[in-house]
Amino acid sequence: MKTTELESYLAERRQLVQEALARNLPPPDTYPPVVHQAMHYSLFAGGKRLRPILVLAAGEAVGSQPEPLLPAACAVEFIHTYSLIHDDLPAMDNDDYRRGRPTCHKVYGEAIALLAGDALLTLAFEVLSRIPATIPPERILRATRELAASAGSQGLIGGQVVDMEAEGQPVTLEKVNYIHNHKTGSLIRACLRLGGILGGAGEEQLALLTRYGEALGLAFQITDDILDITGDFSQTGKQGGVDAARGKATYPACLGVEASRQKAGELCAEAGALARALGPAAEPLELLAGFVLRRQG
Amino acid sequence: MKTTELESYLAERRQLVQEALARNLPPPDTYPPVVHQAMHYSLFAGGKRLRPILVLAAGEAVGSQPEPLLPAACAVEFIHTYSLIHDDLPAMDNDDYRRGRPTCHKVYGEAIALLAGDALLTLAFEVLSRIPATIPPERILRATRELAASAGSQGLIGGQVVDMEAEGQPVTLEKVNYIHNHKTGSLIRACLRLGGILGGAGEEQLALLTRYGEALGLAFQITDDILDITGDFSQTGKQGGVDAARGKATYPACLGVEASRQKAGELCAEAGALARALGPAAEPLELLAGFVLRRQG
Repeated sequence: MKTTELESYLAERRQLVQEALARNLPPPDTYPPVVHQAMHYSLFAGGKRLRPILVLAAGEAVGSQPEPLLPAACAVEFIHTYSLIHDDLPAMDNDDYRRGRPTCHKVYGEAIALLAGDALLTLAFEVLSRIPATIPPERILRATRELAASAGSQGLIGGQVVDMEAEGQPVTLEKVNYIHNHKTGSLIRACLRLGGILGGAGEEQLALLTRYGEALGLAFQITDDILDITGDFSQTGKQGGVDAARGKATYPACLGVEASRQKAGELCAEAGALARALGPAAEPLELLAGFVLRRQG
Repeated sequence: MKTTELESYLAERRQLVQEALARNLPPPDTYPPVVHQAMHYSLFAGGKRLRPILVLAAGEAVGSQPEPLLPAACAVEFIHTYSLIHDDLPAMDNDDYRRGRPTCHKVYGEAIALLAGDALLTLAFEVLSRIPATIPPERILRATRELAASAGSQGLIGGQVVDMEAEGQPVTLEKVNYIHNHKTGSLIRACLRLGGILGGAGEEQLALLTRYGEALGLAFQITDDILDITGDFSQTGKQGGVDAARGKATYPACLGVEASRQKAGELCAEAGALARALGPAAEPLELLAGFVLRRQG
């Protein structure tokens, strides 16, 4: 598989994910329509679908077909989207733009944005519990447990709490690592583990997928920090320099841009090596590590 | 079983629930502590634990022991508590008091209250997926699906959306019924169904439990509406007359207090009859219907 083949792999998987998301989200005219419209607005806002594709790629790396993994892929994207909606609220980061469009609460108001986020989080677990009968129910319960833990108060939410508390405080690498490994890393790690668990991975394969997810997740967030400084609005869809203006705990604030780039490069190399250890079916995961390193938005 | 026996049944079950809630919630010093403290603050705020007790009573009505149902009982109380925290936020009802104490965001700030609610919702599904192996996993997945649907955009959240939209609008009985049957009724109905499903109810028993839950849920919300007008702060812990001041869609606003009382009485009588049809093990459910009708807070 070459880089051009990765592009077509990503395009095909993204298409599967888009269709599954549309199938699993109630139509926008479902009563009461305003909250369903807000859910659609934020879910179909041009996201890259990195997380659901990681679920599929992890399952495929251990021999599964992508289709039975689609409910889990949708669940992680619902959770990712809910976390963005709540994170953008005035009580949190108070962001007006996301992916180049007004944020959910700018369009639908704070109350509906709050409830649309709640509804997406809830829907994630409804959809996960509807996984086809070809997958043993014990595996689905294990995946549910792991997804909930990764999104909870000692995972994604814990990362958001520490991120907010750290604003304007002196930045330490220890704190930045905690924030990144929880706020972003926890759900990305869960994507790899969910794909593995549902795809029938052995414990050794699952350990490789887990370490891959940890390396890729941290690399992804470091490149995000760097793009906030060096990125172009037309590609990132976000106003630049926001992190620095807010005194956010970031890698460049801690180590500078160059050392941050180097760290991201090392992590992606590590992820690539872990993917190679998983064998030929993990080739998309290997190439995805390079893709994350080169990303512009 | 007499009314005094109901009191001791409720006290014993409440004790089981309290212990299970404390076991299933991370301790308040768990990192990051502020969000765990906020979760504890709202969860241990003197709630009656009606919903978790309904889960246990429904399971017991179909022959289950209460203990295996405790994770599900905790899950519904986590969801109920999250919904109160979010409902009290300034962007929603903007309430300063709940059960006689300052609301979560008055103590911990809006951002932490928002995240504590998110964390309780997430924890509900984590705990539900940890149900003991004595219950078949297919039943747990069915319970997960039903709980998520009852709490989602076409259940509890849908009710909150329509409730907000209805504020200050002309009140119709149709709209009040939609709000009550979704905002409150949906989760109460789910309590009965979860207890039944996990407890091994047959479809006929499950249908009786479902209708009981629907009748009791609506009766509960009507008595809540009435207490907002006639209740005593020392017993309700809430400021009275708030619904009317806000132009909330309520039963008394629609039918007056007396006709609302009569409706609640009819619903509780119906619930009692449904419980009797379930047989002697459903006696606590039968007496609970009378308990809801007489409640003062």
